[in-house]
Amino acid sequence: MKKIGVLTGGGDAPGLNAVIRAVVKTAVHDYDCEVLGIRNGFEGFLEQDGVIDLDLKAVSGILPRGGTILGAANRGNPFARKVERNGEIVIEDISAECIARAEELGMEALVVVGGDGTLHIAQEFNNRGVPTVGVPKTIDNDVGGTDFTFGFDTAVNIATEALDRLHTTAESHHRVMILELMGRDAGFIALHSGISGGADVILIPEIPFHFEAICRKVTERKESGRKFSILAVSEGAHPEGEQQVFRRAGDEVFVARLGGVGGTVATFVENVCQAEARVTVLGHLQRGGTPTAFDRWLATRYGAAAVRLIANKGFGRMVSLQQTTIVDVPFSEALAVPKRVDIGGDAVVTARGMGIAFGDEPAG
Amino acid sequence: MKKIGVLTGGGDAPGLNAVIRAVVKTAVHDYDCEVLGIRNGFEGFLEQDGVIDLDLKAVSGILPRGGTILGAANRGNPFARKVERNGEIVIEDISAECIARAEELGMEALVVVGGDGTLHIAQEFNNRGVPTVGVPKTIDNDVGGTDFTFGFDTAVNIATEALDRLHTTAESHHRVMILELMGRDAGFIALHSGISGGADVILIPEIPFHFEAICRKVTERKESGRKFSILAVSEGAHPEGEQQVFRRAGDEVFVARLGGVGGTVATFVENVCQAEARVTVLGHLQRGGTPTAFDRWLATRYGAAAVRLIANKGFGRMVSLQQTTIVDVPFSEALAVPKRVDIGGDAVVTARGMGIAFGDEPAG
Amino acid sequence: MKKIGVLTGGGDAPGLNAVIRAVVKTAVHDYDCEVLGIRNGFEGFLEQDGVIDLDLKAVSGILPRGGTILGAANRGNPFARKVERNGEIVIEDISAECIARAEELGMEALVVVGGDGTLHIAQEFNNRGVPTVGVPKTIDNDVGGTDFTFGFDTAVNIATEALDRLHTTAESHHRVMILELMGRDAGFIALHSGISGGADVILIPEIPFHFEAICRKVTERKESGRKFSILAVSEGAHPEGEQQVFRRAGDEVFVARLGGVGGTVATFVENVCQAEARVTVLGHLQRGGTPTAFDRWLATRYGAAAVRLIANKGFGRMVSLQQTTIVDVPFSEALAVPKRVDIGGDAVVTARGMGIAFGDEPAG
Amino acid sequence: MKKIGVLTGGGDAPGLNAVIRAVVKTAVHDYDCEVLGIRNGFEGFLEQDGVIDLDLKAVSGILPRGGTILGAANRGNPFARKVERNGEIVIEDISAECIARAEELGMEALVVVGGDGTLHIAQEFNNRGVPTVGVPKTIDNDVGGTDFTFGFDTAVNIATEALDRLHTTAESHHRVMILELMGRDAGFIALHSGISGGADVILIPEIPFHFEAICRKVTERKESGRKFSILAVSEGAHPEGEQQVFRRAGDEVFVARLGGVGGTVATFVENVCQAEARVTVLGHLQRGGTPTAFDRWLATRYGAAAVRLIANKGFGRMVSLQQTTIVDVPFSEALAVPKRVDIGGDAVVTARGMGIAFGDEPAG
Repeated sequence: MKKIGVLTGGGDAPGLNAVIRAVVKTAVHDYDCEVLGIRNGFEGFLEQDGVIDLDLKAVSGILPRGGTILGAANRGNPFARKVERNGEIVIEDISAECIARAEELGMEALVVVGGDGTLHIAQEFNNRGVPTVGVPKTIDNDVGGTDFTFGFDTAVNIATEALDRLHTTAESHHRVMILELMGRDAGFIALHSGISGGADVILIPEIPFHFEAICRKVTERKESGRKFSILAVSEGAHPEGEQQVFRRAGDEVFVARLGGVGGTVATFVENVCQAEARVTVLGHLQRGGTPTAFDRWLATRYGAAAVRLIANKGFGRMVSLQQTTIVDVPFSEALAVPKRVDIGGDAVVTARGMGIAFGDEPAG
Repeated sequence: MKKIGVLTGGGDAPGLNAVIRAVVKTAVHDYDCEVLGIRNGFEGFLEQDGVIDLDLKAVSGILPRGGTILGAANRGNPFARKVERNGEIVIEDISAECIARAEELGMEALVVVGGDGTLHIAQEFNNRGVPTVGVPKTIDNDVGGTDFTFGFDTAVNIATEALDRLHTTAESHHRVMILELMGRDAGFIALHSGISGGADVILIPEIPFHFEAICRKVTERKESGRKFSILAVSEGAHPEGEQQVFRRAGDEVFVARLGGVGGTVATFVENVCQAEARVTVLGHLQRGGTPTAFDRWLATRYGAAAVRLIANKGFGRMVSLQQTTIVDVPFSEALAVPKRVDIGGDAVVTARGMGIAFGDEPAG
Repeated sequence: MKKIGVLTGGGDAPGLNAVIRAVVKTAVHDYDCEVLGIRNGFEGFLEQDGVIDLDLKAVSGILPRGGTILGAANRGNPFARKVERNGEIVIEDISAECIARAEELGMEALVVVGGDGTLHIAQEFNNRGVPTVGVPKTIDNDVGGTDFTFGFDTAVNIATEALDRLHTTAESHHRVMILELMGRDAGFIALHSGISGGADVILIPEIPFHFEAICRKVTERKESGRKFSILAVSEGAHPEGEQQVFRRAGDEVFVARLGGVGGTVATFVENVCQAEARVTVLGHLQRGGTPTAFDRWLATRYGAAAVRLIANKGFGRMVSLQQTTIVDVPFSEALAVPKRVDIGGDAVVTARGMGIAFGDEPAG
Repeated sequence: MKKIGVLTGGGDAPGLNAVIRAVVKTAVHDYDCEVLGIRNGFEGFLEQDGVIDLDLKAVSGILPRGGTILGAANRGNPFARKVERNGEIVIEDISAECIARAEELGMEALVVVGGDGTLHIAQEFNNRGVPTVGVPKTIDNDVGGTDFTFGFDTAVNIATEALDRLHTTAESHHRVMILELMGRDAGFIALHSGISGGADVILIPEIPFHFEAICRKVTERKESGRKFSILAVSEGAHPEGEQQVFRRAGDEVFVARLGGVGGTVATFVENVCQAEARVTVLGHLQRGGTPTAFDRWLATRYGAAAVRLIANKGFGRMVSLQQTTIVDVPFSEALAVPKRVDIGGDAVVTARGMGIAFGDEPAG
């Protein structure tokens, strides 16, 4: 093993720099192996200055920092990236050029750090002959084959602190406080932070909700003397019978959260439940900044394990946390089914048992 | 001095409980004086269980907690509160009843903790014969006669941490990150956190902006290789020639921040400056939760000084911070002119000198 | 199930109140069952006012708070507690009285929240006929049969933040910074925070160290231009051939950390390695204050699962985290062997592979 | 103004990098002036690579970071620095060489950022013909002529958070918790954090204490049912009649806090007051890491004002905060008398009025 590459893809997640640092430190220290950093996702393969040397000095001091020193892709998937040509947006496949460039560089293997989208691309690169290993990254925790992705614990902590701050005002000022959280089609952030932050209602995509059930909970609390309620709402939550009618704050959609689920629920609460409501949309605060200890620990172990996996020729596989140990699983297993909240699992059962509403409670 | 009262009015601000605790501890320990807590603003005077005894036990452990153990008013100003009568909202003046009740309770004096609205009411109560002293509270820092109000430092720290988190994503992912902040008609929160958080553009109500100037700054940065920008935007900021066309997230207006200045600026940046923008509206996160050391220190000293002011018969006055000392000023001086950012002061001069744009920069 | 009890034992750990709250909310809401709180460990059984009713109101607002509303034991183990009698300290067994009192109270079952010491007592109570279930608590993470105890994640985050703070001064001011951490005979806190906080040397009880190896690492760094080093040192770490010669900061031993391992290592570094060293002993900062999201989540699920375990007659068992699910294991399994760092596991391998020294590295 | 220099001296303080950044951004943006950074205090003048160019790129991203990118002096005062020569430590005056080098570099003026020791040197350099301006830096807040130094607010916040964490354990576990804090001969950190963190006893150098008075307070609390006490102890606190008999954790003295005032008070409390005590020595945690918003704001304004002061030929002066404005004062005024806690001021009066003991209370 003389030369390997590393790239980071997709949205931001706290811990990306910790992975890069661990890849470099392990490769250099333990294998005397050179590391190339591919900048801006796969695009770096084709850009001038798109591939840089990553030595120990380059990764010094980056462990606690959010973001990624390698930058993120601007035009997405190398198999179908958007390019402006003669004033029109066209889709082009640049994968062959990327692969050729990787060979030209003498890269023996590539570490790809990303969520399910990026990992699918990594799988395809591996299939086409670029030996590739994956590291599961996303604040949404929706990648299969692993107990946790890195970035998730930080997002949950930020959301929990936000719920703590909203709590005191809600209680003093008799408000319904709604916190809209990220997660795409998975409810993990809202479920975890909702339980950790003492929410009264948790809305997640896996459990379609009824507006009336929310109102019943808020009213029931008011009538029993607790004049406030806290709602943790996943951006992908949606009413029964409708599929994600709301626009998301995520990376793919337009910026202003004009008609998000949080605002819609607030409008309903104000007008139908006759309670004063306030919405906060945490947005990108969940994606940036310094990672928690858990995410640094996980990201560091993932990065180091990815290098060892390459040394062991475990190509086409993703590193993964199982219990307290780092193992590895084939891409196919990790990507077979996106992970979702187990709505019969003990977390949801615990929440329901404590009186937290999910919006699917029948009347009466 | 045998019995005094304390009440908190208006929106939430970190440090309210610290004031209440200091009032009680100082009155009990130093003057052997009883303290009554009036709940839910002035409304408590007229409600059953609206006036409670505050002994040392009642204030134990509340120093680090956000909110107020006395609750906040639901129907506002006692001189003109909104009441539903026969299905209609009518305005009624309950001040005479409040004053009568205060006398009936044997309250020798009242500590009123609030922003300019509440302090105006306090002034009026004092004029009508209820000996009153004031404590300046607001996260907006817009009360005159004092260097700082309590609550402000916490809000600025939360906003600064948010800017830190947005910074790393902005830099890695080449985004224009817009953080909309509270402050009503004063730009202190945006100005302070914008400087502390390294913003590139700061928009405040005191300096009407031009959309083009924002675009020039973003584009100038992009062309010099810095592909991201951070904007700290006060909710009350508005374009030149228009007076606060945007709806506010504050307590007085409807919940969903559908057409706030942050979203409007983002729409402009995306469509005119051709840069990807993301908005975060911090909302009530700026008002709640545990206060910073500075706000606890200030709130505690204010509370204690208010009791000493009563002991010295300094009615009709507000405690105030000047340099590092607590003094007191007449209500009339504190309320004469709401405090605004001095646009020729050294903070704005410093920001401009470092290259931060305020949106009023001329072209070319 | 009509009436159950809950008690907390041993040293402080963030999350104790979250467990109590979950026990009460689950019992009341899901089983319509009354909960008694035993105060001050097992001692509450024999004290006046030692057993209190825990209703929903009693646990309102305690989720984010450190400590335990039930207090902690003053005189320890009910089978062998220390009592002063006629001026002498004698050991007495009060277990029979506790059991009699539990029966008298009509307690059908008892939830015991504690570390290995307290859980051994719980096991014995169960054996003697008081149906008991356990919840694993300790910042040290040294209880078997579970992936993690609650309290540990908070301790690791506090230690990691401390390392972050020390890092910037170490780098600017060319210092060797030593952080002494808790953990008793297990190195988990030092290992996890050392990796997450970017330590250069990690000393844990499971790997006896040589002073010379520490010096070699510090000197090697200095000679390669990095004029500072960060050491994360477990209070139970000790040189090869000596068994814990140092006094601990923990609950059992005398207060002043006069001769702790951190200070001893610092003395050595200053005198033998000729480098300026500074020691910080985090002490009880690791045990108190608001829990992280993970610890609240884990503690809440543990508390709820303990109530369900009682409902299912799973006495003599401890709730436990395995992967992402709460299961339960017999006390005997949990207590068979105290958990220690696996010195051949991937965490230690990862650290060594990145160049972190454990003090057992051979010369040359 | 074509070329100026900046150097940082003395112990670490959060905000140093913010000053450097503001100096560079203001000089480059507003004056088109070049900035040289002198590394490692005044020593950089005489070292190879000791003077570096500071352009905008060099200061990008350093605002939130602790430490100083310019490093700190290893051998102290240029007028009397310690050098090893032929195996002996000798004192030499290198100031003339520094001044010659500054002229050779074409530096028109120098910004010196430091505490009273460093500012005295700055004054002397100015007297000898190197035009110099000063910026007051120290976590101890003991520099005259300014309301606050930067670094202090961060130290107080860290100390207050530590008191919060200790509080919950103290209360649950019935302990006397002692937190030893920095501050050298000034009690500001202990006084401010003690009030903000709800301490029961505050010991500061300005008020010599009696052990018996501490014991009375602890015992009085225990007898009234509050079985715990929190003590905030300044490292420079000392008993009446003795002058700082304790060794300090500060930069000047040996590392291990073996006989510090915290440990001594703890020993006394355990043995004489018969209460379990625990000590935490915060040490360098107070000096490092990311600055608070206030310190960033103050440091940034100081740095910018220092450049404007040079432009206005205000040599021999120090920038200073008075109320909310940055002004400047002659070095002689700033250094005339070191600032100490005003023991008759409203902060101490407030604390005493709330029942906080300073250890000088008479018996009975």
